[in-house]
Amino acid sequence: MIIVMKTGATEAEIQHVIERVERLGLKTMVSKGIERTIVGVIGDESLLLGQPIEACPGVDKVMPVMAPYKLVSREFKPESTVIRVKDVEIGGDKIVVMAGPCSIESLERLREIARAVKGAGAVILRGGAFKPRTSPYSFQGLGEEGLKYLKQIGEELGLITISEVMETRQVELVSKYVDILQIGARNMQNFNLLREVGKIRKPVMLKRGLSATIKEWLMSAEYILKEGNFEVILCERGIRTFEQYTRNTLDISAVPAVKQLSHLPIVVDPSHGTGKRDLVKAVSMAAIAAGADGLMIEVHTKPEEALSDGAQSLTPDMFEDLMSSVKRIAQAVGRTM
Amino acid sequence: MIIVMKTGATEAEIQHVIERVERLGLKTMVSKGIERTIVGVIGDESLLLGQPIEACPGVDKVMPVMAPYKLVSREFKPESTVIRVKDVEIGGDKIVVMAGPCSIESLERLREIARAVKGAGAVILRGGAFKPRTSPYSFQGLGEEGLKYLKQIGEELGLITISEVMETRQVELVSKYVDILQIGARNMQNFNLLREVGKIRKPVMLKRGLSATIKEWLMSAEYILKEGNFEVILCERGIRTFEQYTRNTLDISAVPAVKQLSHLPIVVDPSHGTGKRDLVKAVSMAAIAAGADGLMIEVHTKPEEALSDGAQSLTPDMFEDLMSSVKRIAQAVGRTM
Amino acid sequence: MIIVMKTGATEAEIQHVIERVERLGLKTMVSKGIERTIVGVIGDESLLLGQPIEACPGVDKVMPVMAPYKLVSREFKPESTVIRVKDVEIGGDKIVVMAGPCSIESLERLREIARAVKGAGAVILRGGAFKPRTSPYSFQGLGEEGLKYLKQIGEELGLITISEVMETRQVELVSKYVDILQIGARNMQNFNLLREVGKIRKPVMLKRGLSATIKEWLMSAEYILKEGNFEVILCERGIRTFEQYTRNTLDISAVPAVKQLSHLPIVVDPSHGTGKRDLVKAVSMAAIAAGADGLMIEVHTKPEEALSDGAQSLTPDMFEDLMSSVKRIAQAVGRTM
Amino acid sequence: MIIVMKTGATEAEIQHVIERVERLGLKTMVSKGIERTIVGVIGDESLLLGQPIEACPGVDKVMPVMAPYKLVSREFKPESTVIRVKDVEIGGDKIVVMAGPCSIESLERLREIARAVKGAGAVILRGGAFKPRTSPYSFQGLGEEGLKYLKQIGEELGLITISEVMETRQVELVSKYVDILQIGARNMQNFNLLREVGKIRKPVMLKRGLSATIKEWLMSAEYILKEGNFEVILCERGIRTFEQYTRNTLDISAVPAVKQLSHLPIVVDPSHGTGKRDLVKAVSMAAIAAGADGLMIEVHTKPEEALSDGAQSLTPDMFEDLMSSVKRIAQAVGRTM
Repeated sequence: MIIVMKTGATEAEIQHVIERVERLGLKTMVSKGIERTIVGVIGDESLLLGQPIEACPGVDKVMPVMAPYKLVSREFKPESTVIRVKDVEIGGDKIVVMAGPCSIESLERLREIARAVKGAGAVILRGGAFKPRTSPYSFQGLGEEGLKYLKQIGEELGLITISEVMETRQVELVSKYVDILQIGARNMQNFNLLREVGKIRKPVMLKRGLSATIKEWLMSAEYILKEGNFEVILCERGIRTFEQYTRNTLDISAVPAVKQLSHLPIVVDPSHGTGKRDLVKAVSMAAIAAGADGLMIEVHTKPEEALSDGAQSLTPDMFEDLMSSVKRIAQAVGRTM
Repeated sequence: MIIVMKTGATEAEIQHVIERVERLGLKTMVSKGIERTIVGVIGDESLLLGQPIEACPGVDKVMPVMAPYKLVSREFKPESTVIRVKDVEIGGDKIVVMAGPCSIESLERLREIARAVKGAGAVILRGGAFKPRTSPYSFQGLGEEGLKYLKQIGEELGLITISEVMETRQVELVSKYVDILQIGARNMQNFNLLREVGKIRKPVMLKRGLSATIKEWLMSAEYILKEGNFEVILCERGIRTFEQYTRNTLDISAVPAVKQLSHLPIVVDPSHGTGKRDLVKAVSMAAIAAGADGLMIEVHTKPEEALSDGAQSLTPDMFEDLMSSVKRIAQAVGRTM
Repeated sequence: MIIVMKTGATEAEIQHVIERVERLGLKTMVSKGIERTIVGVIGDESLLLGQPIEACPGVDKVMPVMAPYKLVSREFKPESTVIRVKDVEIGGDKIVVMAGPCSIESLERLREIARAVKGAGAVILRGGAFKPRTSPYSFQGLGEEGLKYLKQIGEELGLITISEVMETRQVELVSKYVDILQIGARNMQNFNLLREVGKIRKPVMLKRGLSATIKEWLMSAEYILKEGNFEVILCERGIRTFEQYTRNTLDISAVPAVKQLSHLPIVVDPSHGTGKRDLVKAVSMAAIAAGADGLMIEVHTKPEEALSDGAQSLTPDMFEDLMSSVKRIAQAVGRTM
Repeated sequence: MIIVMKTGATEAEIQHVIERVERLGLKTMVSKGIERTIVGVIGDESLLLGQPIEACPGVDKVMPVMAPYKLVSREFKPESTVIRVKDVEIGGDKIVVMAGPCSIESLERLREIARAVKGAGAVILRGGAFKPRTSPYSFQGLGEEGLKYLKQIGEELGLITISEVMETRQVELVSKYVDILQIGARNMQNFNLLREVGKIRKPVMLKRGLSATIKEWLMSAEYILKEGNFEVILCERGIRTFEQYTRNTLDISAVPAVKQLSHLPIVVDPSHGTGKRDLVKAVSMAAIAAGADGLMIEVHTKPEEALSDGAQSLTPDMFEDLMSSVKRIAQAVGRTM
C-alpha cells in the first residue's frame, strides 16, 4: 500500500501515519519528494484492510498495491478449476451450454423446451422458479412447484439443472431440487446469501452485478470460497452503461481478464447481455472465441407467450443454428462441445 | 403502449399482434405509415405487463406510455407524504438530519458520537450493526449487540434510530431495536427483502441502487407499498459512473425529479454520494437547496480509527459547521431545522 | 412520432399540438385513454426534427418511431457496402487487418514495424502523425513529417495507409499522404470535421466516441455520407464505463447491431478497447467471431520505448500469434484473411 | 510515481526498470515485499509522462502520484482567479448569470429574449450561431449573421456576450463579435481548438465533456493556459450515465471538487445538465449552494417555436422566478447577484 501525503503535510502528520502503520506490525519506507511525501507500506497489506488511513490528518490518498481477493486468484491456485457435476465438467476442454426458459411456466412447456435444447446439444437445463422482477406486478415465478418440475424433467431427460436462489431462506429448499444454484446479478452483493451458499456443497454460478467491477465480482466469489465452497462458476451477463440499444453492455474483455486473474471457470449469458434475440448468436460466438467455458441461453418454444424475457428468448430453431455456429468456433479455439 | 412494427411486417403479423392485444380486453388503433405500421393500445396498460409482445413476429419495438408504478406516484396521491416517528416528521417543513457512525463500534464510542450529533442538531441517530462489505475480510458489524447499543443510546439521548437490515431473516430482529429500517443500495432490488419490510409497521428508508434508474428505484418502493407499508423514505446516495474522483456521482436532479414523480419524502446521503469528507458540506447544502427533506451524514469522533468509511466521516466540528451552513440554506428555501 | 400528453392536459392543449403538427403537412391520430391522450403522427417524421413539440404546454414526452438516420441505414441500402482501396476490399469476405505503431516516431522505426506487420499478414499500415493527447505535455506527433514517412513506407512495402486527421485545416494535408483518413473517438461529434471529410474522395474510418450511443455514431456517419462520401468504415473501440480494469469497455454487441442497422463495414480496435496488451488477442478473436470486417491493432517493435500507448502495443511476436489465432476464427465464420 | 512489478518479476526485469527510470535523471527507491517488488520514483514525475514504463517486461502497473496538470491547479496559484469582462467579474463574490436562447434565430427574437433576461438580472447574453447538432438534418445555426445579431443586441442592451466556437477556423471570426468564447462539451478534447483559443486574448468558457473525468477536464483547461490564456471559466453541464430520465446527470460534487483542485471559476449549466425545464430551477439553486460562481440558462420567449432545445428552455416568467430563488440561495452563502 502506498500512502500519499498532501502537499504541505507536516512532519508530525507524517510521523503519525508511520506510527499508525507500524503499530500493526508493518514496515514503512518513506520517500520525500520535492512537493510530497510518500509512505510505502511493506508487509501483509491485508492487515490494513478496513484501517481508515485516509482519514489521518495530512493524508491525500491511499493506493492499494495488492489485489484484495486471495482464494479466487490465480496466484493462489495457478491451475484452472474444473467443476464436475455428474458427468459434466465445467471449466474443462468441453464447452458447456446451459439453456432453457427464463421462467418455468408449466411441466409440459418445460419438457417441450428441455427436449429441444437437449436435442441441440445443451447439457444443463436452466429455468427460474423464484424470479427477481423489477415490477411487483410482473410474474414472480412458480416457486417450489417450479423446482419440482425442473427436477422431474432433469431426471427424465438426463440433464443437469440450474436455478436461481434469491434469499438465504431459500438456499436449503433450492439445493434439494437442483444441481447448481444461481446467484443473480441483483444479488451479487447480497453478502448474507453469498455466505449461505458458501456453506452448502453444490456448485454455485455467480452472475456479475449490473454495475460491478471485475474486482468486486471476484470479491463476491471470495465470500463463497471463504466459507468453504470452492465450486464457483462466474457468469458475465453484461453491465449497465449509457447505451440503450442493448439491454446491457456485454463486457467481452472480462472473459480473458477473469481467466488471467482467477482460476474459476467463466460462462457468458448473451441473452441478458444483449436483451435482443437477434444479437444472441453473434455474441455467443464471440464469447467462446474470447475463451469462455460455456454459455447460458434463454430458449422458449413460444417466445411470444413467455411469462418473462420473451423478447430475448430464442426459438428451438434459432438455438440449433446457434449451437452449430458456436461449435465451429469451439473447434477453432481447440475445444469441443 | 405503442407497438412499432418492423419495416416490411406482413399483414398477418400485424393482425396477429392486434388479436394478441385485444384478447386481453384492450383496444387498438392502427396507423399505417409509408414505411411502418404502428399499433396503439388503448386501455389499462398494466394488463400488458409481462406480455412479451416484442417477441411476436414482425414487431420492432414496444414503447410503454404509462409509468409502471402506481402507489408511489404523485398521480395516485397528490399530497406529499409526511412520516411521523415519535415527535419527528420526515417530509414536512422541517429538514431532518440523520447522523452517526458508519458502523456501531462500541457503546462508549456510539454515545460519544451521538452526543456530538445531537448537540449539533441531528434528530435521528444512524449506526450500522449489520454491514454489507465488499470484502469478506473487512469488519462485518457487531450484529445484535450493536442494535442493543443503538437502542440504549437512542433512549438515553432521546434520538430516533435507524439501522440497516440486510436480509429477510433479520427484519424481525432489527425491527425490535430500531425506529426506522434502512435498505442499503446493494439491496434495492432484493425483492424478497422489500416484500418483507412491506409487511412490518415501521418506516423504511430505501437507498437508491448503485446503478438504478429513478424508475427502478420507484418500482422497488412500490414493492414495499404494495405490501401495505406506505411509510417509505427514499434516499439518494449517488450512482456509479465513470468518474473516479468521487466514490459515486450524487444525482442532484433526482431530488426534484422524485418530488415531481412521487409523494414520498426524499433525503440525501452526501457521505456515500461523494466518499470524500471535504465535499460533504457543499453537497449537503446543494441537496437542501434542491428540495431534499433531509440528510444522512456519517460522523465519527475519531475518523482515523473508524472500522469503516473513516475517510468520508466528518468530525463533530465539521458536522457542526455543516449544520450551521445547511441551516442558512434551509431558511433560504423556506424551511426550518 | 408519438406525442404523449400529460395527465390532465386540457382539450385546448391537445388541439394546439394537433394543429402544430398538421401545420407541417402531417396527419395525426388521437387516442384518448382513461388517463392520458396520445397523439400519433402519420407521415414523414423527419419534418418534425428540430420541432420542439415537447415544449408545447401539456406535452409529457415525445417518442420518435423512426431511426433518425437514412443514408447509413440498411433500409436505405440493403446490400453491404464494400470499400475498395487499391487491391484491398473492406467489408468483403476477407478480414482486413490494420496494424502499426500508435505514433509514427521515425522513418526507421516505422519501417521496422511495417515489415513486421506485413510479414504477419496486415494489409493496412496505421500510424499517427497528429496525436490527440489528454495532456499538453505528452508527445503530440511528428505532424507532416510523420505523414511523409507513412507514405514512403506504404509505397516501399505495398501497404495501404491510414492516419488520423484532427481538424478541418488538416484534411487536405492528410489526404495528400494517406489512403484512408481516420476520425478519432474524441472527434466523433466534431461536426465540421465530419462535413469536411464528407467532401473528399477518400475512405474515412470513423471511430465510435467514448460515450456515443450506436445511434449517435450512425448519425455522425450520416454527416459524412450526406456530403457525398459513402466510403465510411465504422470502428468500435470501446466505450467509457465504470469498469477501470480495462481502459474502455469494448462493446462486442455493437458489431452485430451495426451490421443489422447499417450497410457500412465495421472493424474493431481491441488495443484501445482494452488498453491491455494481454487482452488484445482474445478480444480480436471475439470481434471476428461476432462478425467484424477487420481489426486495427497497435504493434511496436519496442513497446517500452513507444512515445504513446506502449502498454497496449503488441510486439511483432505477439501480433504474429494473434494473426494465426484470428485466422482460425475467420475460417470458422466462413471468411478468409 | 509508483511502479508495481508482477508477482514473479525477475531481478533482471526489476533492474531494467530502475535503469530505465534513472536514465531520465530520476531516483528510485525499491521495496521488496513478500510477493511483489515496488519501485518508487523520486523527482519530477512529469519526466515520466509519455514513458511507457507499463510496457517494460515484468511490470504490472504504474500509479502516478502527482496530478498531471500544473497551471490550472490551486497548488500553482492558491488564490481564486477572477476574470473581468468589462464591468462584470466572473469568479468574484457576485454570482454571474448567463442566459439566452440555445440558438440565435432572428434579430427580433434575440432582442425580445435579451430584454427579458436582462430584466430578470442576467448580465451575460448567450446565443449559439454555430450549433453542434447530433443530426445533419437539424438546424445548424445562422453562422456569422447570428454573431452580428448577438453583437448588436449586446451593445444595445449593455450585455456581455458569449457564443460557441466549433473549430479552429472559426476562432478569429467568433472573437471579432463576442466577449467570451465557449468550447462545447463535444469539443472538450478537440486539442487543436484548445490550443487555438489559448492564443487569443479573450476569456474562454470550457464545458466539461459528456464522458470526461474532472482530471481530463482540467487537463483540457491546461492546454489553454499553456498557450498563455489564463482566462478560463469551467462549466459543469452534466455527464453521461445510464440514467435516462434526465438528459445528462449533473455532477454537483464537481463544483466543490473543482474549487479545491483549481483556481479557475466554475459555472453550472442546468439546462443541459437536466434537459427538462421543470428541473432547472431546483438544480440552479443547488449549484449556487454548492459554490458555483454562476449559471448558464437557456431562455426563450416561445420555447415551442425554438429551433433547438425548446424542451429545456425556460420562459421569461420561469426565469424570473428562478432568479429570485437563486438570489436567496446566493445570500445564504454570502454572495450577491
